[in-house]
Amino acid sequence: MYKIDLNCDLGESFGAYSLGMDEDILRFVTSANIACGFHAGDPSVMQKTVKLALKNNVQIGAHPGLPDLAGFGRRNMNITPQEAHDMVIYQIGALAGFVKAEGTRMQHVKPHGALYNMAAKDSKLAIAIAEAVYKVDSELILFGLAGSELVRAGAKIGLQTANEVFSDRTYQADGTLTPRTEPDALIHDKKQAVGQVVRMIKEGKVLSRQQVDVPVKADTVCIHGDGAAALAFAQQIKETLELSGIEIAAFRS
Amino acid sequence: MYKIDLNCDLGESFGAYSLGMDEDILRFVTSANIACGFHAGDPSVMQKTVKLALKNNVQIGAHPGLPDLAGFGRRNMNITPQEAHDMVIYQIGALAGFVKAEGTRMQHVKPHGALYNMAAKDSKLAIAIAEAVYKVDSELILFGLAGSELVRAGAKIGLQTANEVFSDRTYQADGTLTPRTEPDALIHDKKQAVGQVVRMIKEGKVLSRQQVDVPVKADTVCIHGDGAAALAFAQQIKETLELSGIEIAAFRS
Amino acid sequence: MYKIDLNCDLGESFGAYSLGMDEDILRFVTSANIACGFHAGDPSVMQKTVKLALKNNVQIGAHPGLPDLAGFGRRNMNITPQEAHDMVIYQIGALAGFVKAEGTRMQHVKPHGALYNMAAKDSKLAIAIAEAVYKVDSELILFGLAGSELVRAGAKIGLQTANEVFSDRTYQADGTLTPRTEPDALIHDKKQAVGQVVRMIKEGKVLSRQQVDVPVKADTVCIHGDGAAALAFAQQIKETLELSGIEIAAFRS
Amino acid sequence: MYKIDLNCDLGESFGAYSLGMDEDILRFVTSANIACGFHAGDPSVMQKTVKLALKNNVQIGAHPGLPDLAGFGRRNMNITPQEAHDMVIYQIGALAGFVKAEGTRMQHVKPHGALYNMAAKDSKLAIAIAEAVYKVDSELILFGLAGSELVRAGAKIGLQTANEVFSDRTYQADGTLTPRTEPDALIHDKKQAVGQVVRMIKEGKVLSRQQVDVPVKADTVCIHGDGAAALAFAQQIKETLELSGIEIAAFRS
Repeated sequence: MYKIDLNCDLGESFGAYSLGMDEDILRFVTSANIACGFHAGDPSVMQKTVKLALKNNVQIGAHPGLPDLAGFGRRNMNITPQEAHDMVIYQIGALAGFVKAEGTRMQHVKPHGALYNMAAKDSKLAIAIAEAVYKVDSELILFGLAGSELVRAGAKIGLQTANEVFSDRTYQADGTLTPRTEPDALIHDKKQAVGQVVRMIKEGKVLSRQQVDVPVKADTVCIHGDGAAALAFAQQIKETLELSGIEIAAFRS
Repeated sequence: MYKIDLNCDLGESFGAYSLGMDEDILRFVTSANIACGFHAGDPSVMQKTVKLALKNNVQIGAHPGLPDLAGFGRRNMNITPQEAHDMVIYQIGALAGFVKAEGTRMQHVKPHGALYNMAAKDSKLAIAIAEAVYKVDSELILFGLAGSELVRAGAKIGLQTANEVFSDRTYQADGTLTPRTEPDALIHDKKQAVGQVVRMIKEGKVLSRQQVDVPVKADTVCIHGDGAAALAFAQQIKETLELSGIEIAAFRS
Repeated sequence: MYKIDLNCDLGESFGAYSLGMDEDILRFVTSANIACGFHAGDPSVMQKTVKLALKNNVQIGAHPGLPDLAGFGRRNMNITPQEAHDMVIYQIGALAGFVKAEGTRMQHVKPHGALYNMAAKDSKLAIAIAEAVYKVDSELILFGLAGSELVRAGAKIGLQTANEVFSDRTYQADGTLTPRTEPDALIHDKKQAVGQVVRMIKEGKVLSRQQVDVPVKADTVCIHGDGAAALAFAQQIKETLELSGIEIAAFRS
Repeated sequence: MYKIDLNCDLGESFGAYSLGMDEDILRFVTSANIACGFHAGDPSVMQKTVKLALKNNVQIGAHPGLPDLAGFGRRNMNITPQEAHDMVIYQIGALAGFVKAEGTRMQHVKPHGALYNMAAKDSKLAIAIAEAVYKVDSELILFGLAGSELVRAGAKIGLQTANEVFSDRTYQADGTLTPRTEPDALIHDKKQAVGQVVRMIKEGKVLSRQQVDVPVKADTVCIHGDGAAALAFAQQIKETLELSGIEIAAFRS
């Protein structure tokens, strides 16, 4: 039987600043990537978000980012692999504190934003991040862009990995995502978006922008949680996957 | 036989900024309180400091502080007990990441600066901090000012606690430290300083500024690690304690 | 003829985090207090907010706060008068950069949150802040709680000052605001709130919670800009004041 | 007669962290680039450094950097030209507050570290920075790497510019600095270093690593202020330049 995990970024509020619709989106996903205070989140937000995820039986993962709150961790920074390694250990550890305090364990780690994108292409950064994850807890699952250097590094280090796919992004003939700066980077048609995901799961293929099929492994789908439209789409994708005979479940339980 | 732990604040460098003489002071102490990135320290400094402490067979503790890098965590901030609870979990967790990455465990937690001082007097803050420590790892030892609310809270929660005493500070008739703003707050005479510590350990008493003996429990002594004079004094206190038949040892090994 | 200024805190967004309804509230106020990056705001938010205020013919003021983004500048911090002096100069200067870039001048300075509250009572802090404002530009108007140490300090230093009053807060027999922790601190009845302001402006009196009239000088009224209810109330207070024959105008034009 | 300005980065301490030998180096330079709180410096350090520079009759400039205290502003960040524009205005303004408080004016602006390097090559970033400087005060002098995009942008916008040269770095045949990652990037021989500067000033030429002369305009020389060796070299370069008949003077007085 086909099986897929649905993951979403959560806990992105900070102090007086509120972001996202965490309580609502948790009804539709199976894995929560919780911000760890560098690009978003703060200790009190993390504490609440961990509790909220547990209440909804959603698996918890750390979502470490670059130390750039003003840029929400979306601006590439020229950090060294050692710096990446250290900031990932720090952030996983910080979230693990809250998870341990609730008497449970973390399932996974998914780097955020620019760190995710840089680690998808830069093998040194990818290895440094994978090593950091492995050292803190070798049973953590490393989430990365499907087919990326990060997933490759995780497997090489000995971690279980999860290939992440996107419903609302088009793919290139080489299996990478079409950069957002290009036209047709985004899929606006909801049916097409869901259809792309179903096919990736069932056939392991996606039709690239160049109109050729490329192989893609889909272990987890990125779900957005910001805004009413995102919620509606999350519900739609969940229901369609289930109707298509695909089991929606996290990697751990 | 008499026994005492010697602790020192370490890992207080930040980015390009270097502080303290960590490598030198580690030869004289048995427990290291490592800054966790809020009032001092950063992920790379933490990583190096954990390794350095282990290399010197010094026990590791988290040294969580207020989120005030510019003020080095020394300025009181009007935080709620919940905020204290959450920021302590966050910081213990972050350091625990590096400790786990080295395949070992943390021994203790000692709040820093203003957080330490506020928790010595404010029982709500003290309970919140003690609960945070207990939830992350109930076997951690909570360091606090001897006889303070923090030590009391730790014991109440079920934590092992360590009463911290000072060699270079005078005590009041009620057992509290003479505030730094008053004359005679500091003991400048090195012999007197060491003598005060020996007596606290062996007799459980200290001669207060009001010239009456007050009982004090001494489990660990605060050693400063900044500057050549501090190093020389650390060596002197270590040697004198040993000559006085007092075993210098951490709580765990 | 009676005259009053209506001021509102603006530019409190930060990076990806959006806060307040700046465009809407600017239609109802005459002076904008713009956050300067310590408790809220960032360079790009400041740049946009300055332009927005100018477009709406609203006078601009700096809104310096404590260096506590996570606490939104609302937590008291034990800073020295010198630190307050320096952080106020820094923040006024930073905003002045954007104001100069638009070819115009700033009207006023109003400390934010905990800095405002501490400076209302602590005369040393108040003098330090007033001196900072005076040194950067002796023609700036210093906004403070009506009758507070801050207003007193400003006058003593030689600054023009503006006494700020609140429509939605009750007053004590000694002229201070009822602390938020006490019952009856807030006025929920809109008519009563507007009536209190009209009387403060026209009669220079307010009925305290102890049911005795106390004198109060009202130069500017604090208007909230967060939420639909706040907008509606801003419109209501503006219209009622105008119908009461009170001119609504900034101090400069 | 030949004339040159000697500039040095100052005010790089932060809170409890001390960096540089500001008091000493000020005896040898004519222009001080003062950190503005993003990559280094804080309000109280800025206040003291401005006073110190004035006491030594050294001209003051703003030294804006990237918002990366942990990386000391040395890590490239993928900011937009608009973000660069806004953060430069903010930082110039902040320093201008302290300069105005002392009743004087700023001479120049020199971007720091990664911002300096990125603006040397990226014309869009360079124009955004030059515009920011011009808008705040069109009489400020913009310092940039000799022959860089930043100097070009400044001239285009209508600013006075200053071409900065380095004594301890080798140049490429195309007039750029040899990247630090390559061998021979640094000149360790002090006599050679001073000789290179004298020739750049008197002949407008530098012998590149490829052994061909390349033209270079030298308006100001970067002097390092960190460490005893730096101080000795600053003294040496100052004395040699004077003996070579080159007047050492700032651009303004």
